[in-house]
Amino acid sequence: MQSTSLPRYKLHISYDGTHYSGWQIQPNALSIQECIERAFATLLREKIKIVGAGRTDAGVHAIGQVAHFSTASPIDIRRLQAGLNGLLPHDIRIQGIFPVDPDFHACYDAIRKEYHYHLWLDKTHSPFVRLYRYHPPFPVSIPLLQEACQLFVGTHDFSTFANKGGGAKTSVRNLYRIDLILQEGGCRLEFEGDGFLYKMVRNIVGTLLEVASLKRPIDSIPLLLQAKDRKAAGIAAPPHGLFLMHVQYPASLQKKGQE
Amino acid sequence: MQSTSLPRYKLHISYDGTHYSGWQIQPNALSIQECIERAFATLLREKIKIVGAGRTDAGVHAIGQVAHFSTASPIDIRRLQAGLNGLLPHDIRIQGIFPVDPDFHACYDAIRKEYHYHLWLDKTHSPFVRLYRYHPPFPVSIPLLQEACQLFVGTHDFSTFANKGGGAKTSVRNLYRIDLILQEGGCRLEFEGDGFLYKMVRNIVGTLLEVASLKRPIDSIPLLLQAKDRKAAGIAAPPHGLFLMHVQYPASLQKKGQE
Repeated sequence: MQSTSLPRYKLHISYDGTHYSGWQIQPNALSIQECIERAFATLLREKIKIVGAGRTDAGVHAIGQVAHFSTASPIDIRRLQAGLNGLLPHDIRIQGIFPVDPDFHACYDAIRKEYHYHLWLDKTHSPFVRLYRYHPPFPVSIPLLQEACQLFVGTHDFSTFANKGGGAKTSVRNLYRIDLILQEGGCRLEFEGDGFLYKMVRNIVGTLLEVASLKRPIDSIPLLLQAKDRKAAGIAAPPHGLFLMHVQYPASLQKKGQE
Repeated sequence: MQSTSLPRYKLHISYDGTHYSGWQIQPNALSIQECIERAFATLLREKIKIVGAGRTDAGVHAIGQVAHFSTASPIDIRRLQAGLNGLLPHDIRIQGIFPVDPDFHACYDAIRKEYHYHLWLDKTHSPFVRLYRYHPPFPVSIPLLQEACQLFVGTHDFSTFANKGGGAKTSVRNLYRIDLILQEGGCRLEFEGDGFLYKMVRNIVGTLLEVASLKRPIDSIPLLLQAKDRKAAGIAAPPHGLFLMHVQYPASLQKKGQE
């Protein structure tokens, strides 16, 4: 574990990913990380590096993204939060800032993550959630979708559902649950697991929708998992239905009274 | 009542008002009405005039706006709806098209309207509803807000809360209810009445927020209503918290099976 003597803080961040190239800084495109680092530079007159719990792709949203930073500057947490939110665009909000141990790591210490994927299934989309719900251009069977979800739950090698570029050491992940929750206009799929490979949720949703629209038999799912071949499965579902909801850390890393 | 021999239809429309100059056509600005009339002109190769149940201002949203139009063209309702939604921007959706009597009038025949005004009261706004909830920059007392609402309910001359330009013959309106409903991040105020003067809901909400933030005493509200002077009351609340939810017509005007 990396150690540093500088005081470290955890950020809780929500953002509408519509207008961004994703979480991670990249050349010639505006990322969430870059916006936040710029706001820090203006406020603290110091170059601060923000380390996120995970990357989100272009167009993916977050309710509960987590990141950490270290600084030698004296921090008044309430003033820093107000100052950052004053400088940031309105589609990125710092929801909280909490002191953590100097060796806390937002990415490496995460033990559990929750993602939601929202589907709009009515004939006509709603103007108000058009950027936050995917509206498939084909009929979707809810019972079939629900049944297919359960075939992904458990400990599997998810290579078939991982794009290259994630840099993970192993493709084995524990998917604790995929729950289908009915909501206005359609449903959401709640994914909870110990970790997710690159584009894993969107790739699983893409295949789930193929099954739920009778384009692929449901009993092909176990075979897809066994294939360990990205090309065997369906295309990724679009980014705008996906939300990073929550990142969990071991109780031992929670500073008393911080949440 | 206007009469015509051409078949007439009722439209149910929802829109995100953020990027529009309001419902009504005006020079040098893009209105909802203009977008819909353009889509009709393209589809039916005929200039169709759309008459709305009421104007909504720039930035105001609608879940249940109603409008009517007449046409000599033969209409396949399902194909027309799909065609209009295919041509319209994604922030305007035709939710339904229904045949009505040739003398049905979306504005003059309306007997009841419902508006909701959404308030975000948490310290930090949500990136996802920033365009659909007003976030007052001061603390708001919910009990005081609720108490103040009730002073507006009933039959009153609402001149103090009407901007010029509405063209109404009388300023007396029946406000059946203003209900405060708690919801995530704050609350919404539900207004239901037999009709609303120009900017009446936003003007009432502006004064309600002055009362609920201790800038104006609650017992001044009856005096404001008696004053019949727009200058006596507070400024209008911003448009983006306001939604036109529903327009009601007499049961006698509903064609069988249309809804």
